[in-house]
Amino acid sequence: MADLNGFLEALASNSPTPGGGSVAALAGALGAALASMVANLTIGKKKYVDVEDDMKAALQKTEALRLELAQLIEEDAAAFGKVMKAMKLPKETDEEKAARKAAMQASLIDAATVPLAVMEKCVDVIRLSKGVAEKGNKNAVSDAGVAALMGRAGAHAARLNVLINLGWIDASEHRGFVEKAGAALGVMATEADRGADEVFQIVLAKVT
Amino acid sequence: MADLNGFLEALASNSPTPGGGSVAALAGALGAALASMVANLTIGKKKYVDVEDDMKAALQKTEALRLELAQLIEEDAAAFGKVMKAMKLPKETDEEKAARKAAMQASLIDAATVPLAVMEKCVDVIRLSKGVAEKGNKNAVSDAGVAALMGRAGAHAARLNVLINLGWIDASEHRGFVEKAGAALGVMATEADRGADEVFQIVLAKVT
Repeated sequence: MADLNGFLEALASNSPTPGGGSVAALAGALGAALASMVANLTIGKKKYVDVEDDMKAALQKTEALRLELAQLIEEDAAAFGKVMKAMKLPKETDEEKAARKAAMQASLIDAATVPLAVMEKCVDVIRLSKGVAEKGNKNAVSDAGVAALMGRAGAHAARLNVLINLGWIDASEHRGFVEKAGAALGVMATEADRGADEVFQIVLAKVT
Repeated sequence: MADLNGFLEALASNSPTPGGGSVAALAGALGAALASMVANLTIGKKKYVDVEDDMKAALQKTEALRLELAQLIEEDAAAFGKVMKAMKLPKETDEEKAARKAAMQASLIDAATVPLAVMEKCVDVIRLSKGVAEKGNKNAVSDAGVAALMGRAGAHAARLNVLINLGWIDASEHRGFVEKAGAALGVMATEADRGADEVFQIVLAKVT
């Protein structure tokens, strides 16, 4: 799997992108893909004909999430690139300083908005993992568990990336955004932990 | 990042490999790569000259782990492939049945041994993440946090993959392996959780 090695090498290098924000989105995409796999390994099996419609409905959602999260891997790197570009703007005159500050703040808000979206979608991945863990092909139940684990790791990884960007945003100028983002992080972190714990217990009961 | 999309598509498909076992190893490799990135973003910076030797030592270990875990992505799929192959052996005569059972058991032990190694290396990733979170470039501290989160997810994902294979191993014939594996899982799960929580608190304190 030489393709993965290319990404892993780029990640390990001293270039700041791709970085943890992209990995958060990738973790979510891996979780969504595994939830899709469990649904795909259930659909068409006689033993699971009763849950066929549920699995088809789940698959539509997990595949949409997989594609959205894969897109967010690149969007995170692009948003971070804009912050780096704004940082390099000239800051000699007062006008330049003001323009640089405005560009920095706008790019930081974008850079926080991407992982907020990643976190939301990771919570969705966990919720869908629960359905495939409960009703999907039992031989693939560990994959449903790994899907939830990746969703949870992606959610918390995204949270750290929102927080590090929020720390640079001028809260006096952007109070509304900072407060709303902070509140959303708390709610989603709780939801991710609770949901992933539920799935993990379902899976443990089936594999042991 | 078309290369990642290829892997994500293969994962989502109705082929059982790559599956959750490969994702466990990939999660660990992503964590190792991010720990490498933090070390690389610290080495050579005047502000961090006092920790340069620590970062160089950490980097050697995180890069070795990244390569080993990347290798384990493929080894997991290969080990699972052997289980599938053994399952398809003929089972008409008593001799065939006995040969099939022996081949199944041997392949299941291999299939459990790979994620045991993945889990051990994920615990190492978490330990190394702590060092780069504490002493590495503060601007990349969220990446150190994501490294630990990926190590933790990889460890628990590997654990589920060990358990699902252990469930098929004849404990009366392979009691030593089953008991030793079960005990190792418990120790490593505790270590992974405690270590990752420590790193997460270090990172949270620095980003908020």
